[in-house]
Amino acid sequence: AVRLRVREALGARQPVDEVKVQGWVRSVRSQKEVLFLHINDGSSLESLQVVADPSLENRDLTFGSAVEVQGKLVKSPHKKQNMELQAETIRVVGPCDTWSFPLKVKERHPLEYVRQFPHLRCRNNTLASLLRIRSEATAAIHSFFQVNGYVHIHTPIITSNDCEGAGELFHIETSNEAKESAEKTHFFNVPAFLTVSGQLHLEVMAGAFTRVFTFGPTFRAENSQSRRHLAEFYMVEAELSFTESLQDVMQVMEDLFKTATSTVLSKCPHDVELFHKYVAPAQKTQHLRLFFFFPSCRISYSEAVEILKQASQTFTFKPEWGCDLQTEHEKYLVKHCGDRPVFVINYPYDLKPFYMRDNEDGPQHTVAAVDLLVPGIGELCGGSLREERLPFLESRLQRLGLADAYQWYLDLRRFGSVPHGGFGMGFERYLQYILGVDNIKDVIPFPRFSHSCLL
Amino acid sequence: AVRLRVREALGARQPVDEVKVQGWVRSVRSQKEVLFLHINDGSSLESLQVVADPSLENRDLTFGSAVEVQGKLVKSPHKKQNMELQAETIRVVGPCDTWSFPLKVKERHPLEYVRQFPHLRCRNNTLASLLRIRSEATAAIHSFFQVNGYVHIHTPIITSNDCEGAGELFHIETSNEAKESAEKTHFFNVPAFLTVSGQLHLEVMAGAFTRVFTFGPTFRAENSQSRRHLAEFYMVEAELSFTESLQDVMQVMEDLFKTATSTVLSKCPHDVELFHKYVAPAQKTQHLRLFFFFPSCRISYSEAVEILKQASQTFTFKPEWGCDLQTEHEKYLVKHCGDRPVFVINYPYDLKPFYMRDNEDGPQHTVAAVDLLVPGIGELCGGSLREERLPFLESRLQRLGLADAYQWYLDLRRFGSVPHGGFGMGFERYLQYILGVDNIKDVIPFPRFSHSCLL
Repeated sequence: AVRLRVREALGARQPVDEVKVQGWVRSVRSQKEVLFLHINDGSSLESLQVVADPSLENRDLTFGSAVEVQGKLVKSPHKKQNMELQAETIRVVGPCDTWSFPLKVKERHPLEYVRQFPHLRCRNNTLASLLRIRSEATAAIHSFFQVNGYVHIHTPIITSNDCEGAGELFHIETSNEAKESAEKTHFFNVPAFLTVSGQLHLEVMAGAFTRVFTFGPTFRAENSQSRRHLAEFYMVEAELSFTESLQDVMQVMEDLFKTATSTVLSKCPHDVELFHKYVAPAQKTQHLRLFFFFPSCRISYSEAVEILKQASQTFTFKPEWGCDLQTEHEKYLVKHCGDRPVFVINYPYDLKPFYMRDNEDGPQHTVAAVDLLVPGIGELCGGSLREERLPFLESRLQRLGLADAYQWYLDLRRFGSVPHGGFGMGFERYLQYILGVDNIKDVIPFPRFSHSCLL
Repeated sequence: AVRLRVREALGARQPVDEVKVQGWVRSVRSQKEVLFLHINDGSSLESLQVVADPSLENRDLTFGSAVEVQGKLVKSPHKKQNMELQAETIRVVGPCDTWSFPLKVKERHPLEYVRQFPHLRCRNNTLASLLRIRSEATAAIHSFFQVNGYVHIHTPIITSNDCEGAGELFHIETSNEAKESAEKTHFFNVPAFLTVSGQLHLEVMAGAFTRVFTFGPTFRAENSQSRRHLAEFYMVEAELSFTESLQDVMQVMEDLFKTATSTVLSKCPHDVELFHKYVAPAQKTQHLRLFFFFPSCRISYSEAVEILKQASQTFTFKPEWGCDLQTEHEKYLVKHCGDRPVFVINYPYDLKPFYMRDNEDGPQHTVAAVDLLVPGIGELCGGSLREERLPFLESRLQRLGLADAYQWYLDLRRFGSVPHGGFGMGFERYLQYILGVDNIKDVIPFPRFSHSCLL
């Protein structure tokens, strides 16, 4: 017998005489003359219908049990499906105690419910669709960069760089260090942390390969229970040499978004449809279409502050030039621009990290930074031109007292420095946005956040 | 002017009148009548030859400087290259202080030397070739699994599982915890560690998707300075449901190796050639060819011990049934089998972790485990069938006192359990093997090992 995945069986053009299909039972319907099963093996959202003689019924043949079915793959008389399997034998490979199994047949469990069972929730349709989409999106992102001549770099997870936002870092210790904290010697000789961004390491590589990207885990020890934050999340980061303006960076952000999204839509139409039908309220998914049909909006930070100041709405945080945009401000700006993605560029010099390129403007002094805000999410991407001019960077680091720690970074400007820039995109936020998923915990296989690290 | 990458310029079929090429100078040769430059932008090992009037020379035009050259792309009169660039303008974008730049023009720096400069070594030809190959191999591995219907899973980096080999784990703390270790409250409420393997999490997913893989960082706090060990390294791991025997697992290992390697060989022929010519002694790269032309060797652990016992060679560790194979043993076995990859299967039950499938043999009791040993490296892959039978797994966990901690893992056997298996391949060891690189520190962008975490 030919072994077929459910997806292959469903897509078969011709009947096949002897096939074997393996998977998990999604439904059992026993009639007088005929036994119907639906078998799913995770290769697609759709299950394969199995038609059998009632004599093949068996008390272990329940929702959730694992089975191997042999028989004939034939054209289905029903319009809703292309092929069905006429069973000759049905073997229960692994039974399922349906009484204690937390997933129930034909129930649409809320995402909050299945989140309690991190080891079983992937057997739920919604989570299974999510993870297939996540897998396709991952492949699409790798492929976008490869096709466009970027070299993939595994930037380090453990780093000795600690100078940005030190409060939110996770420290790494060995068990010896943890126990004998009095006479502390570090495994790496220096204090070591989990990375918050691969950017500085990518800049090293952009000085050799011109275009580089990374796509890996990043970490924040933020004590936040927000629906937009995780302690462990994935970032796509790219760095490009020989940029001419911030526009070069924004163009890559937009191309990446469009390419990845159209790949996902064409590769997982049914999985995406499940979200747009049952998970996301209809108005949310409108944004997606808008992104394809309209140019995104582009405003400067200074314009954004003016828009906020003139708003009839009262904000908790008063908008003021020089202050960070708050979530409420981001929401207003997105709405103001017609509920579509908004690039906000040129942020105050004093708000942003040392590596961002000085615009040498004034009196409202800015750097060439850009954030991409999207409806329902807020910041999806953040990027900037990097300061490639040695004197500018050196004096800024000196003022911050960081010049010694960053001699290696200054070296990049001493030896063949070039104008360059880059950005990072939060992968989970990207998935939340395109699928309309409210809580970030539902778009990652094993969410880690404060007070929770299950399995 | 059309902006071209060096790789595109070198591969052009037709002359192009107005082009712009940007990159870093690899050599400057000034003659009376003509100025020759070689420009590299990391898109390929080969540089583009630029031919210019000597009047375009400039004191900043040195090895390592960044330049933008505009001119005509024409057929080269020389046989060694296809196209060359006749410069009309040359602009030095970023000069390079060659005196303090640690890389020197036309010098073949040893790998040990460039390792001292983690922020600059990617500008060295050997490291640049390595990183391009690493990038292509990464893409090839993702593509192999995608084409074969595997779902990609981001298994967690931070985990609360600590039961395997707890001595070698990195612990994670927040700065508060580190400081006030007296009144310790954990960020995650439980002790948290850096993952040593994504296997158990992949098993969760194999129960929904049948075939899954992950490709991410893993960690060992081993105090080892070996040329085969890192504290942070990458693993490719796959898990397959509905396996029929260990052969199913070995087949995927072999297919993965062959597909990835032939992709790398065809996509980066010049980069690979650099290694086979200058880095690896000739006899090492023979192995690679052998792998393609011969079937790999397959022996059981018990046979391996017999072979070792009958060896004329004296070992530091006496070979004995029930003891781990040491590096010296692995070397001997690989040689004994004709210097080619060797699968060793069916290891002693008591040597292996709880999740491996009991072969129910005896008196020499074994589990269905497999290691793939390769010349020059030792263990490249390790895998096994997993114990899918609830009573076997439950009693083993109980004897180990782990039954409570692994109730979730037992659940996977309670609800639709299926025969399954999987393996992991060390990605850096894979690169060492196919390229003949002696030290694992030279096949990863930013190596982390005991006493060292640079940048």
